[in-house]
Amino acid sequence: MNSALEHYLKSCQTRVEAALEARLPSNAILPQKLHQAMRYSVLNGGKRMRPLLTYCTGKTLGINPEVLDGIACAVEFIHVYSLIHDDLPAMDDDDLRRGKPTCHKAFDEATAILAGDGLQALAFEVLAHDVSINATPEARLKMITLLAKASGSQGMVGGQAIDLESVGKQITLPELENMHIHKTGALIRASVNLATLVKADVNPEMANKLDNYAKCIGLSFQVKDDILDEESDTTTLGKTQGKDQDNNKPTYPALLGLAGAKQKAQELHERAIENLTMFGTEADLLRELSLYIIQRDH
Amino acid sequence: MNSALEHYLKSCQTRVEAALEARLPSNAILPQKLHQAMRYSVLNGGKRMRPLLTYCTGKTLGINPEVLDGIACAVEFIHVYSLIHDDLPAMDDDDLRRGKPTCHKAFDEATAILAGDGLQALAFEVLAHDVSINATPEARLKMITLLAKASGSQGMVGGQAIDLESVGKQITLPELENMHIHKTGALIRASVNLATLVKADVNPEMANKLDNYAKCIGLSFQVKDDILDEESDTTTLGKTQGKDQDNNKPTYPALLGLAGAKQKAQELHERAIENLTMFGTEADLLRELSLYIIQRDH
Repeated sequence: MNSALEHYLKSCQTRVEAALEARLPSNAILPQKLHQAMRYSVLNGGKRMRPLLTYCTGKTLGINPEVLDGIACAVEFIHVYSLIHDDLPAMDDDDLRRGKPTCHKAFDEATAILAGDGLQALAFEVLAHDVSINATPEARLKMITLLAKASGSQGMVGGQAIDLESVGKQITLPELENMHIHKTGALIRASVNLATLVKADVNPEMANKLDNYAKCIGLSFQVKDDILDEESDTTTLGKTQGKDQDNNKPTYPALLGLAGAKQKAQELHERAIENLTMFGTEADLLRELSLYIIQRDH
Repeated sequence: MNSALEHYLKSCQTRVEAALEARLPSNAILPQKLHQAMRYSVLNGGKRMRPLLTYCTGKTLGINPEVLDGIACAVEFIHVYSLIHDDLPAMDDDDLRRGKPTCHKAFDEATAILAGDGLQALAFEVLAHDVSINATPEARLKMITLLAKASGSQGMVGGQAIDLESVGKQITLPELENMHIHKTGALIRASVNLATLVKADVNPEMANKLDNYAKCIGLSFQVKDDILDEESDTTTLGKTQGKDQDNNKPTYPALLGLAGAKQKAQELHERAIENLTMFGTEADLLRELSLYIIQRDH
């Protein structure tokens, strides 16, 4: 990766860690165990792909990172709540997340359910209230609507429901794609589109191109996840390797073969990049991010 | 109950049933099982105490019910999501709710977790977006902040965490009260205070009196619930009788005796009513509701 770009991404990562930390209730606030569980799950060394997307979309549109902190945090809170709930025994039943015990293993199931619930509420509180967000009240309401739809029963939560229903079933490529478009794609699109909403004068064509970019990387992210799940060992991955195959979950490598899945990821990356042409070099970070998504090793 | 008031409450109940129905995704929308679970849990013959409080607060302040539908639904969606999650095996492990199988019994645990998650997102979507709400964007943002705080880790979700931690422990009356102030009180206060936010010109004293009223009935509601849990049979109650005692959960009758608990409920009702003096007869519905809360048999 270009070192200037790498440096910017690192600075965004540092930035979002501090922003998340500042917006989480402290461990000292009652009920302590609940707040410990929320902090444990959020401040857990995640890649922060979604906040990075928010900041990089901002960079592309000339929006300063300071006014995006609240949005970046809201999206990450939703993402982390979904991971906590997805890891529960009644769902994917995972013991490891980012190389550490999952929330219900480190605490207990009830606390994990509640920590997820609390993080969801916090996400909307931040969008409604956070002083970092420099937008009109009307724009904030659009953001809240967008995030609620993207994370709700016809977005991310719906995708997880489709995923659970498809375990052990033969599904087609379009069905697999539909599942991912909801389960992970909706929130990835929101990470980009929320940043677009900050700026009042973004023309619809620009917004549409960025949304298309986000759709492509949302899918390539998932294709790459499936490839990693098949290829990596548990230590590198930070979660149990081969879990999806063991669970008889449909994956891109299972449907397309490993080579076919890799080609698919490459094609999605190229389609993502095509949507950035009109932004010139301002969109270099988004290009790098798309490349990183299909080249990462965890 | 005064028959005119009873008629008004009945009309509000009919009104909120239709409003909830209209705002829930239909059973035909994918993923169907998830939406069936959401509809099953919401459209389940609840008392709609929180929506009634919203409408009755509106009546007291001269706000038409039509502009309160979205708020009433948002509060009820949060309430129902909390019931679904509280009933889960990892939490209170309840098989019956309102005389019917709980969501995870009628469907499955994963679907119940997701149905709750989806309802929470829907609540915020409705507050941000619903056309029924006749308020400025600024007021809507205040509503969203208020509901997020009331339902989050320092409100309702926090109260549930405190409740789980106190099972099997000897706790004092102030500790019991603190638990209920969060677990049920926060959302009951929100039901009243959200209605107050609709009106731009409510003076702070009025808002404060209504908030105090809500605090009192939030507690009396819980005291009465504990009394009912001790006195009623399972059929009348619609949930498993004596469950709290079996679970070794702290209750008002356990700490104050049955007579003491009944006296406590009466005192809270009287304090609630005192806060309504300045509203004259306009607040008769709120008075009736407070009385109903301590006199109901389920």
